[in-house]
Amino acid sequence: MKKQLNVGIVGTKFMGRAHSNAWLAAPKFFDTPYTPVLKAVCARDKDATAGFAENWGYIDVETDWRELIARPDIDIIDVCSPTANHKEVVLAAAAAGKHIFCEKPCALSSADAREMAQAADKAGVVHYLNHNYRRVPAIAFAKQMIDEGKLGTIYHWRGAYLQDWIMDPNFPLTWHLQKEYAGAGPHFDLNSHAVDLARYLVGEIDSVSAMMKTFVTERPLPGAGAATFTSGSDTGSAGMGEVTVDDASFMLASFENGALGSFDSSRFAGGRKNYNYFELYGSKGSLIFDLENMNALQYCNLEDPADEQGFRTIQVTNAAHPFMDAWWAPGHIIGYGNTFVHAVKDFLDAVAGKSTITPNLWDGVKIMQVLEAGQLAAKEGRTVKLSELE
Amino acid sequence: MKKQLNVGIVGTKFMGRAHSNAWLAAPKFFDTPYTPVLKAVCARDKDATAGFAENWGYIDVETDWRELIARPDIDIIDVCSPTANHKEVVLAAAAAGKHIFCEKPCALSSADAREMAQAADKAGVVHYLNHNYRRVPAIAFAKQMIDEGKLGTIYHWRGAYLQDWIMDPNFPLTWHLQKEYAGAGPHFDLNSHAVDLARYLVGEIDSVSAMMKTFVTERPLPGAGAATFTSGSDTGSAGMGEVTVDDASFMLASFENGALGSFDSSRFAGGRKNYNYFELYGSKGSLIFDLENMNALQYCNLEDPADEQGFRTIQVTNAAHPFMDAWWAPGHIIGYGNTFVHAVKDFLDAVAGKSTITPNLWDGVKIMQVLEAGQLAAKEGRTVKLSELE
Amino acid sequence: MKKQLNVGIVGTKFMGRAHSNAWLAAPKFFDTPYTPVLKAVCARDKDATAGFAENWGYIDVETDWRELIARPDIDIIDVCSPTANHKEVVLAAAAAGKHIFCEKPCALSSADAREMAQAADKAGVVHYLNHNYRRVPAIAFAKQMIDEGKLGTIYHWRGAYLQDWIMDPNFPLTWHLQKEYAGAGPHFDLNSHAVDLARYLVGEIDSVSAMMKTFVTERPLPGAGAATFTSGSDTGSAGMGEVTVDDASFMLASFENGALGSFDSSRFAGGRKNYNYFELYGSKGSLIFDLENMNALQYCNLEDPADEQGFRTIQVTNAAHPFMDAWWAPGHIIGYGNTFVHAVKDFLDAVAGKSTITPNLWDGVKIMQVLEAGQLAAKEGRTVKLSELE
Amino acid sequence: MKKQLNVGIVGTKFMGRAHSNAWLAAPKFFDTPYTPVLKAVCARDKDATAGFAENWGYIDVETDWRELIARPDIDIIDVCSPTANHKEVVLAAAAAGKHIFCEKPCALSSADAREMAQAADKAGVVHYLNHNYRRVPAIAFAKQMIDEGKLGTIYHWRGAYLQDWIMDPNFPLTWHLQKEYAGAGPHFDLNSHAVDLARYLVGEIDSVSAMMKTFVTERPLPGAGAATFTSGSDTGSAGMGEVTVDDASFMLASFENGALGSFDSSRFAGGRKNYNYFELYGSKGSLIFDLENMNALQYCNLEDPADEQGFRTIQVTNAAHPFMDAWWAPGHIIGYGNTFVHAVKDFLDAVAGKSTITPNLWDGVKIMQVLEAGQLAAKEGRTVKLSELE
Repeated sequence: MKKQLNVGIVGTKFMGRAHSNAWLAAPKFFDTPYTPVLKAVCARDKDATAGFAENWGYIDVETDWRELIARPDIDIIDVCSPTANHKEVVLAAAAAGKHIFCEKPCALSSADAREMAQAADKAGVVHYLNHNYRRVPAIAFAKQMIDEGKLGTIYHWRGAYLQDWIMDPNFPLTWHLQKEYAGAGPHFDLNSHAVDLARYLVGEIDSVSAMMKTFVTERPLPGAGAATFTSGSDTGSAGMGEVTVDDASFMLASFENGALGSFDSSRFAGGRKNYNYFELYGSKGSLIFDLENMNALQYCNLEDPADEQGFRTIQVTNAAHPFMDAWWAPGHIIGYGNTFVHAVKDFLDAVAGKSTITPNLWDGVKIMQVLEAGQLAAKEGRTVKLSELE
Repeated sequence: MKKQLNVGIVGTKFMGRAHSNAWLAAPKFFDTPYTPVLKAVCARDKDATAGFAENWGYIDVETDWRELIARPDIDIIDVCSPTANHKEVVLAAAAAGKHIFCEKPCALSSADAREMAQAADKAGVVHYLNHNYRRVPAIAFAKQMIDEGKLGTIYHWRGAYLQDWIMDPNFPLTWHLQKEYAGAGPHFDLNSHAVDLARYLVGEIDSVSAMMKTFVTERPLPGAGAATFTSGSDTGSAGMGEVTVDDASFMLASFENGALGSFDSSRFAGGRKNYNYFELYGSKGSLIFDLENMNALQYCNLEDPADEQGFRTIQVTNAAHPFMDAWWAPGHIIGYGNTFVHAVKDFLDAVAGKSTITPNLWDGVKIMQVLEAGQLAAKEGRTVKLSELE
Repeated sequence: MKKQLNVGIVGTKFMGRAHSNAWLAAPKFFDTPYTPVLKAVCARDKDATAGFAENWGYIDVETDWRELIARPDIDIIDVCSPTANHKEVVLAAAAAGKHIFCEKPCALSSADAREMAQAADKAGVVHYLNHNYRRVPAIAFAKQMIDEGKLGTIYHWRGAYLQDWIMDPNFPLTWHLQKEYAGAGPHFDLNSHAVDLARYLVGEIDSVSAMMKTFVTERPLPGAGAATFTSGSDTGSAGMGEVTVDDASFMLASFENGALGSFDSSRFAGGRKNYNYFELYGSKGSLIFDLENMNALQYCNLEDPADEQGFRTIQVTNAAHPFMDAWWAPGHIIGYGNTFVHAVKDFLDAVAGKSTITPNLWDGVKIMQVLEAGQLAAKEGRTVKLSELE
Repeated sequence: MKKQLNVGIVGTKFMGRAHSNAWLAAPKFFDTPYTPVLKAVCARDKDATAGFAENWGYIDVETDWRELIARPDIDIIDVCSPTANHKEVVLAAAAAGKHIFCEKPCALSSADAREMAQAADKAGVVHYLNHNYRRVPAIAFAKQMIDEGKLGTIYHWRGAYLQDWIMDPNFPLTWHLQKEYAGAGPHFDLNSHAVDLARYLVGEIDSVSAMMKTFVTERPLPGAGAATFTSGSDTGSAGMGEVTVDDASFMLASFENGALGSFDSSRFAGGRKNYNYFELYGSKGSLIFDLENMNALQYCNLEDPADEQGFRTIQVTNAAHPFMDAWWAPGHIIGYGNTFVHAVKDFLDAVAGKSTITPNLWDGVKIMQVLEAGQLAAKEGRTVKLSELE
């Protein structure tokens, strides 16, 4: 029987569910070095958290994350709380010598992220920042193709991350729309994913310019209880509040290797639900990815005969494709939830010392630096070099 | 705490894994009336089965399905063994009063399927035939649209189920290619799914005509151990054996309601992995579905202004879409494995008397009748009415 | 200056325009051996025909096709009149020693087509049957790939030709819906194109089975003047008439080389305007074509590495692609009208003896035989071998 | 018989052919107020120009454009010469009172364009700048939908114009790659089209930022005769020359109405031939267009029920769609060449005073200002307001 590792999770919302499922599924579908045990879950509402624990099989319930981290029987802290809370949880977890599995975005600033990364390194724990899309098989396969030289020199990254969930001007002023809680709008929430993928597939970014827009500048305050992160003075009564983040952020980037890239992110792109899309153009080949049909990867091989070239749709569902031997059969697709299972698998391998895992909190620092450079570029109307932020 | 139901599963291959995962996941993502317990797993190889049990959390291991069924502590028999074995397992399970969750295709003949259905009805147990694609949200949503009249009178079903896994003439003569074990080639394996969906979405079939081909008539005998279903005289030595099933089956169908349909199935369609595709044309609207991008449904609303009509791609990932409120967020897709979770959810509701579930073994009878009519039509070169087979 | 050839055209409707444009454009875009001269146009309505002549630059107007053919100064008869009229025009043109450029479908029966082909051969004239889709560059390129062996042994033709223009039950009973004028519905109109392409790309058909439907069996009689081909007793008054052709025809075919094919044609496929679509599956590669995006050809090369295979979209717009060096630049598409220009170019080459041209009237015979076999198969509910019709 | 207008064309390359075809075809497919007569063609090589004249039916040949313009029998000057030549031809044509049909890009600078526009206005002639894509029916239909309010407030333009024809480092240093002849690389050649469409569909641009790259900075000098626009010192001998334009230009734009846009243009996007693509997102609907499949327009109607929303593909081939009643039948596509016919049709209407035509030379001024602002932004690494360039 495999050695067990005890997981303590902070947060029970969307990510709490996705992570819990992944901890349970990973050892069933993959030959993991450990069996994770859902030891304890932590959130502020005791009754709701107890229900969550029963549903997912967590043994204990905590309502103070400090107490969770203080427990000696916890090996891994899984951080699924809102971004503004990441820093203090991660610092405490590192101090307590726990391995860290942290949701994205890393933190509200690169300075915070750096503190987190330094603390984790100092503690010698494994730390992972869950930009889960690196573990979509089609993206992992793209990375493999690039590493094998199949794209040659990369000239362009054309990324878009588009959604439409706040187009209604009556959508309330949730924490996502307030700078103090979210740091930024799609520029952090969506572009953090896109920048992570661009760094993974293309390389480091040298300089950026950007333009941002807030189309709806005032929104109704949410009702009492609807927004856990709004200030205590919100009584749920009528009233409007100021939107303090971007609704859309378009950013250009020059990469250290000479590539030219674009990052278009928006929450005002009607018809787009979770459209995380990129095109990569290299001297030997091109790739296209669309998260809404994430089992496919489009590839144009420029070494094919000229009159037979074209973008082909590879169904990334063969056993030979990354992660896919663990699942079904060719043509049987996997979903969003499965990417978390892949992350847990690789994280457990890293804890066992079988491999290292990225992105980690240092990647979080780099991503945040790019995003902050973008904010500065938009604010000052100029191209900002990343080196300015060192 | 919810009442528990004990599951005994027969079979540990592809379907054994997909079902085990589903029994575990269903109560975590859906509010099921029972918590299924993985009580016992049965397969012939004791050691391998013990490994399977440990992986998935089955408490006990059995090597004789008769003994599994004889256990009083089993409530549900989950039939994941090869088709040729379905009949005897189902008959025994029904005789023992167990609820039945049976993989497809139902049986090797409609006569067998009828015996199974009669036995299950007589025993008063819930029986379900796992044509899981009915529970792909996009297909369930298509059904809902049709029931709401959004397609009007349906004129056409154009179905294709195409794969390419045996195109290599050196692919060995596994049980799938032998009539005594598989009954037929894609005509049973793939068309059973297509006929199930056509009956679900369009209605009963009145008559069929068909043409079938076997492109590779002899194949290498598989090595020892490679094919559990080949005859005992296979020593794994060199040698060729006769393919006794179709490699491709194209069938036309006239439906009772007047619609005209086609069913093209093949294992010799290069580039197609699991291409389960259909187009539905009605007087008010048209639909297109492709399993390899199964979270999407294409819809053409013929009541849109003429110059604005076109096939739109609906991402069937909203909370309002069937089954989707249990999963992630709009635009976050699910995969093949999730459809089994939906089946378990609905099966448990049926056991609790909250609803009925289809397809069941009687649907298996109907499906097999259509397929047998297709075989007769191909053999005799004529249109065969389903009424001939009653 | 090039030698001139005088064209006399019969018919001034849709095809009269498309052909006239092509005769004018061909020598401008291609290095044709002759310059065609629009010498005379023939149709029954003198004033309308004079307007047509002025628009397109025809020198003379005729109202009796017999007189047109009798003119010694005409070299080519271009037959754009309705199908029912083809036979007598072609026979007369052949008798007069004119080269023949004939619209499709060839005739109302294979017997008529045979008479026409024999007469043309006997007269020693060049005859061409204008199934123009053979000269869509993507299809010509598909043919080239097949001839080069890039598909290997072909296993499947999956063709569909779908439209929706008569779905409204109030669409009047035009000549297209009457057997005496049109011979059949989509089975002739659309399947003649599909059968032509299947014979071109796959080979001869051995046997067929088919099912046909007429969804709307009675339709309003057209108003006076609206339908030039309805009987003289139509006074335009209210009244309903019987539809005597198929609204949809689905046909299966076994090819002489062993391939298995399907031909789904319908005028009741909502959202489809001119959806002439086929998939071709061979042992080494697969192709997909869609007329509504006719500058593209999808190709799956089965000799690509297994994990990089997929259907690629070739933009068939390079100078290296058939016919395309005459037009624009890569990525600049051509349209439906251009295919007629290609036909004229090849026809003029054939008249000059530089090459032969297909399809010709003998292909018309073969196509009609397949379609008649399909009608017989549908009527008698059985598979019909083409050899029965010899 | 219609009144005739005499056309004198300058240039016989790609555009000379496309325009000549359009002057001939327009009165045949459309009810134009005039019949254009191909009176004279002008280019420097007398023999080649004579061949061009014979092919297209031009009556006279000129080798000096000044003499062409001096002819009293010319009504329209059609400017198909290279960009660097546009200004002097247009100024002379205006001075001579000729109507002007001018290829794009307008000129090498906005100052030149302004001089041209002022001269044309002063002369009172009709002037048209041939950004022909405005007359792709799908784009004209998009404009119509926007004017009808179907997109509501527009939030985003996401444009890309991507090609791959100079990716080979051995592609020679043609005039397109030299600033003195071309002004810029894709930033002028491709972005001029994109900016024209964005202004047409969204509105005026307020400010821009941009990044540009030249991936191949030196290229082989072209052989003698291969590049008419290279300097006289090019002897065709071996040697390399400096590329003085961008290979790629990515630009962000803020529109006066608040929309945020991106313009990605490149000649280093492998697999893209003439990929002129845009997405438009508004408060009520979204549109997508792709020139390589230019008869289609994707539309997402945000007023459809939420669970039935999606991007639909409208085949813009109905008689009700702009320009399409002149061509074939629904589903029968047109090509790139046809858009020039539409331009000629509208130009003749404008000459007749039946309508005005855009874009004209003043639009050329505006487009060049945006492009110059983009160049300044890239050079200085800052956001540039258009008002700075007034």
